[in-house]
Amino acid sequence: MMDEVTLPDNQRVILFNKRPDGMPTEDCFLLSEAPVPEIADGEVLVKTHFLSIDPYMRNAMRGGGNYGPLNPGDVMIGRGAGVVVASRHADFKPGDAVQSEFGWREYVALKGDGLRKLPPDLEPLSLSLGVVGQSAATAWVGLRDVAKVQRGETIVVSAAAGAVGSAVGQIGRILGCRVVGIAGGLEKCRHAVEDLGFDTCLDYKAGDLSGQLGKAVPEGIDVYFDNVGGETLDAVLEHVNEEARVAICGQISQYNLARPRPLENIGVLLAKGVMMQGFRIGSRLDRRDQALEELLGWWRDGRLEYRETVSEGFETAPAALLNMLSGGNRGKQVVRVTG
Amino acid sequence: MMDEVTLPDNQRVILFNKRPDGMPTEDCFLLSEAPVPEIADGEVLVKTHFLSIDPYMRNAMRGGGNYGPLNPGDVMIGRGAGVVVASRHADFKPGDAVQSEFGWREYVALKGDGLRKLPPDLEPLSLSLGVVGQSAATAWVGLRDVAKVQRGETIVVSAAAGAVGSAVGQIGRILGCRVVGIAGGLEKCRHAVEDLGFDTCLDYKAGDLSGQLGKAVPEGIDVYFDNVGGETLDAVLEHVNEEARVAICGQISQYNLARPRPLENIGVLLAKGVMMQGFRIGSRLDRRDQALEELLGWWRDGRLEYRETVSEGFETAPAALLNMLSGGNRGKQVVRVTG
Repeated sequence: MMDEVTLPDNQRVILFNKRPDGMPTEDCFLLSEAPVPEIADGEVLVKTHFLSIDPYMRNAMRGGGNYGPLNPGDVMIGRGAGVVVASRHADFKPGDAVQSEFGWREYVALKGDGLRKLPPDLEPLSLSLGVVGQSAATAWVGLRDVAKVQRGETIVVSAAAGAVGSAVGQIGRILGCRVVGIAGGLEKCRHAVEDLGFDTCLDYKAGDLSGQLGKAVPEGIDVYFDNVGGETLDAVLEHVNEEARVAICGQISQYNLARPRPLENIGVLLAKGVMMQGFRIGSRLDRRDQALEELLGWWRDGRLEYRETVSEGFETAPAALLNMLSGGNRGKQVVRVTG
Repeated sequence: MMDEVTLPDNQRVILFNKRPDGMPTEDCFLLSEAPVPEIADGEVLVKTHFLSIDPYMRNAMRGGGNYGPLNPGDVMIGRGAGVVVASRHADFKPGDAVQSEFGWREYVALKGDGLRKLPPDLEPLSLSLGVVGQSAATAWVGLRDVAKVQRGETIVVSAAAGAVGSAVGQIGRILGCRVVGIAGGLEKCRHAVEDLGFDTCLDYKAGDLSGQLGKAVPEGIDVYFDNVGGETLDAVLEHVNEEARVAICGQISQYNLARPRPLENIGVLLAKGVMMQGFRIGSRLDRRDQALEELLGWWRDGRLEYRETVSEGFETAPAALLNMLSGGNRGKQVVRVTG
């Protein structure tokens, strides 16, 4: 099949340059060049329109976790959304929009088998990374499969103004739950309540989170969707109900620490029959497609609000990641590469 | 209905006298007298043959947990096995053996509805407290319902020579798993392997438990049945596999501490998708009868070994509890009151 567009010989890529010590800095990354790849039979060549910026990246940069191996010198990992520019797979033609693991590249060669084609009405393509993409699917799987949330329960979610947290709140409301967010600062809390429909949202930066929870959730907490770990998790565990469930999706408060903070309130698991489980969407791909289908339906019905923080230009990806890690984003942090 | 035996007017009871500070002492209890109760319609009067001595009692004595309220001045809580001596319930007659929550009393009035009658072939009656009773049912529920153990998996269990731990090991073997015990001292470990059929057993008193686990379980741990909490739990978490499950049944290492030890390795829950859940058999009574039926079958087939540590005389119950809390028992600790 002939390419319909003229492709450059070379492209920009961003390499993971060195492991951070504490909060990452821009010199942990290196802008570089690489050939635009040739595609083999069964592959498609995709031009990157958006890159997804996510908290798990910090964990991968530590070299631990199960995202890797990510080693200095590798192209930085990350999901992306883009458009097919050349195809040697029968199911794809130039112009089709797709979403997958791209890495930080302007062009990527992907196998067509199993590649997720995006519906034509999904605009902008960045939505496929957030509110009807991996972030929201993570929220859906955590609530439905890990926490097994029931109508009428009370859900607490941390990082409530982030991409996953804002999806947790909205899905929780759609499922008939009371939803209480935790976020850093009044503006994020206002966003969670006024724009996203959270029942209430607590500003952990105001201090005494446990006391705030006691007042905000007198009925106790049935489900905690944990994006941050650390002392927030301990504060929440002081207010859980019998048989509560904690879905641990992220521990962003711990990723920059040399020695993670131990959990004080481990005893509540036995005292109240509490279940606590870590999960990653990558280990539950069998459920992701079902999640995305339901999310797409809700989005088309106008039931999912979203906000994005868009960083302009491929070369801004490192700065976008640092911004997200320091809490500078509202909703999904993405990088617009083109389109 | 007329009593078939001559009953005394008064009986001995043991009161919970004061909350302990650290390891309990005998003056936390008080031997006292009380009338032998009259029974109402629908009740039976039971003479206590055996009292069950269990780790959860230490937790109840703290006044926390969900066993209470147990307050100074109350008759001490505890399960027992005994024989009906008078009945005003159609399903029971004098001579029937039963098992229930008795409290530390020589005679107890119990409602007949829902009372568990013991099969005539179950001798001695103390077995109904241990290897075919609450202890083994706790092991069964923890493995089957909480940890959802699968054939071929590797199970680690702490307090392996105790009543629950020795049942975990034997049930795990029956279910087709590899079972590794953790116990204090060579003699307990020998008992677990030679008498109970554990694949191996590690002596935590020998030090470097994490190093011992690394050698004993190179394939990694799929299920940890936790009876002790504390640093043992942290050591085990260094060796768990992806999607491992931790059933927290007890935290005996923590009950005497003013401030429980925090959990260091909380991060492994996210890193490996681990599930951790506290449970109490009292919250899962719907499954207990099914457990007891299967255990009784295994016991009749000669597939369940057991050992008991029997303390002679009602008045020895406090000493028996202190012995069990300091690890002096092998298998189920009981008190023989009569019979």
